[in-house]
Amino acid sequence: MYRELDRYLIISSDGHAGLPAAQYREYVDPEFRDAFDVALPIQIAATEAAAKSFLVDDINKKWREGNDYELSGAWDTDARIKVMDADGIAAEVLFPDGVTEMNAPPFGAGFSMGTEGVTSELQWAGCRAHNRWLAEFVSAAPERRIGLACIPVLWDIELAVEGVRWAKDNGLRGVVLPPMWGRFAPYHNACYDPFWEACQELNMPIHFHSGPSPINDYFGPMPPPEGYVPNQGAVGIYITEVAMWLTRPLTFMLWGGVFERFPKLKVALTEGTSIWVPEYLELLEQRYSETHYSMKLGDYRSHLSMSPVDYFKRNVKIGASCMPRREAELRHGTGVPQIMWGSDYPHPEGAWPFTREQVHETFQGLPEDEVGLMLGGNAAEFYDVDVEKLVPLVAKIGPEKASLRQS
Amino acid sequence: MYRELDRYLIISSDGHAGLPAAQYREYVDPEFRDAFDVALPIQIAATEAAAKSFLVDDINKKWREGNDYELSGAWDTDARIKVMDADGIAAEVLFPDGVTEMNAPPFGAGFSMGTEGVTSELQWAGCRAHNRWLAEFVSAAPERRIGLACIPVLWDIELAVEGVRWAKDNGLRGVVLPPMWGRFAPYHNACYDPFWEACQELNMPIHFHSGPSPINDYFGPMPPPEGYVPNQGAVGIYITEVAMWLTRPLTFMLWGGVFERFPKLKVALTEGTSIWVPEYLELLEQRYSETHYSMKLGDYRSHLSMSPVDYFKRNVKIGASCMPRREAELRHGTGVPQIMWGSDYPHPEGAWPFTREQVHETFQGLPEDEVGLMLGGNAAEFYDVDVEKLVPLVAKIGPEKASLRQS
Repeated sequence: MYRELDRYLIISSDGHAGLPAAQYREYVDPEFRDAFDVALPIQIAATEAAAKSFLVDDINKKWREGNDYELSGAWDTDARIKVMDADGIAAEVLFPDGVTEMNAPPFGAGFSMGTEGVTSELQWAGCRAHNRWLAEFVSAAPERRIGLACIPVLWDIELAVEGVRWAKDNGLRGVVLPPMWGRFAPYHNACYDPFWEACQELNMPIHFHSGPSPINDYFGPMPPPEGYVPNQGAVGIYITEVAMWLTRPLTFMLWGGVFERFPKLKVALTEGTSIWVPEYLELLEQRYSETHYSMKLGDYRSHLSMSPVDYFKRNVKIGASCMPRREAELRHGTGVPQIMWGSDYPHPEGAWPFTREQVHETFQGLPEDEVGLMLGGNAAEFYDVDVEKLVPLVAKIGPEKASLRQS
Repeated sequence: MYRELDRYLIISSDGHAGLPAAQYREYVDPEFRDAFDVALPIQIAATEAAAKSFLVDDINKKWREGNDYELSGAWDTDARIKVMDADGIAAEVLFPDGVTEMNAPPFGAGFSMGTEGVTSELQWAGCRAHNRWLAEFVSAAPERRIGLACIPVLWDIELAVEGVRWAKDNGLRGVVLPPMWGRFAPYHNACYDPFWEACQELNMPIHFHSGPSPINDYFGPMPPPEGYVPNQGAVGIYITEVAMWLTRPLTFMLWGGVFERFPKLKVALTEGTSIWVPEYLELLEQRYSETHYSMKLGDYRSHLSMSPVDYFKRNVKIGASCMPRREAELRHGTGVPQIMWGSDYPHPEGAWPFTREQVHETFQGLPEDEVGLMLGGNAAEFYDVDVEKLVPLVAKIGPEKASLRQS
């Protein structure tokens, strides 16, 4: 039994994997390879430009210096195993977009899957290419890799249902969906029911990963004033609103009755912190229980057999990337069973290569059973991981429980 | 000195006033009256349809029964004075949309001022009509009425600047702006600077009132499944997200440096509760102070000379409509100087006709100086109210301080 080990099983709920952009070519359906050849230099130029502004170049460069091999773990199976072993991580969930701006899948696939400036055929082709590669990558260490298929569910439900079946058949263990629906139907809309049904039947948890946020800076017919700094404040706005945009799909699903119709559907919200959860649950409960201010709007509860908070507790997990101590202290308001710690490797804001130190800082002195759940136990159950297979590995690389007892 | 009275000065930060739709005709610019005649029956039919679904008809009807005179206070000056006296309210802020679905100004004016399905010429015409009528309504009891002009600022800055100058010249004391910008520039964009400058110079506080929220239920090319219930869950989603949409303009202004450039600009966010404020301030402070996770995104602080929380405390007030006891208990996290109690008369979810009882329930036993600020002192300062003129009235109608001491 892994619980009897004197070390912690760590399953990171937030890892990223992806090929260098050019190498996706052979995974793209042959009929889209011409389009791939046209799009590739445009994609590379755009990501290089973004790296110079949005992603501050010198921070990224400095952080990467001397780490070429370790960061190649984004796509190289041996390098990734070495990195994970060194960090003490036994298994991990794999989202797309390896070192972010260098490893995005083609044609607007990835964890954002925006719907502007892309066609459904191309975005699907990009997702299929990534999913094929990821299935290979997972098969090199299947007990340690929980691969998530990119499913751009907004365009076409039948394709999405096919996509999740393909993913299950090919060893992937969940799906990533676009967190923003743009001009499409939000996730409370029953048009998605066939997809939720398939995910429930196949035990494929769905995931939303933070990232997109609608901040435009449009001037319309008006000329910008003198001395104008483009989009000033956008980063502050972005980091203030990031959890809000990640939470939106869940709010729609909870009130829309999705978990009433699909009681075993599993959802994870990743890298939006867990700090917002206690307040969010309080708000849901208040809105559900106190009807005085809303009764003029009509009945909004009778299609739900329980409170949105109860669905949350039953169906939802939080991918708590690089969870700081403060969030660990709020764990009872968030719900210990909800929390799945994540490393966010290989992103610069992630825990690597200091996972052992970060885990110590966050969890030291807390009850061992709770720490065990947050570091790996909850994820093991959520993803149905065969933990006994990981015991020999954990016995070697897992952080010692004793080390988290003392300060 | 009003503070020495043994009664509380109450200034409601949230009142609504507006004519029955048809009566706006004479206030509309002559060149838009033909359009008014075409639009009026459409507007009435649409609001009647909305009253049957969105606004549950029987609740509204029951609530109104026998209250025709009292509710005519939405536009009748004598009726309003009687209602306010009975409720113990000395003065109040006047937003548009009286009894909501019956008193919206023409052409999509009001506190939402959505930008879809309307032209700038018509929306402006609707706003001008309302503002003209409101200036008259205020002039009938100027010491008791703080009228807010509707300014659809998104379309044209020069018109907006003219609008706020007209409002000031005609006895109005602040402006209402659309809380959602749709396809237009968000409020961090410097194109709005000339408008902020005018509002600061004229000491005209700007207001965002809760209401709009983007919840569509679009099916796109897919047919709805059998047994589909349209937009199921939308009300729950709406009431969960309502404060979030109200907060968005402020988030953009805070990070965009608007209060850095216009240190005396005043903002109020109304009827979005105050429950979200402590968490929001904590989030702003965290995002401002802890830069580890965001530094890869670039410098986002050097255009601000202080923390967004400090701007909040200096420039922002919360219109805390029908504030429940729980929010009063959180007042120190929210900031006592930020809170302005509101009645929301004549809306069915408002405090009327039970303001005295609600105020007792919310504030009893709390320190008198804090209660005094939240009930009226903060609003008096924010709107530069000549409170000494109100002393004789407060001495007659204000709730006795002693009555809030006992339980």
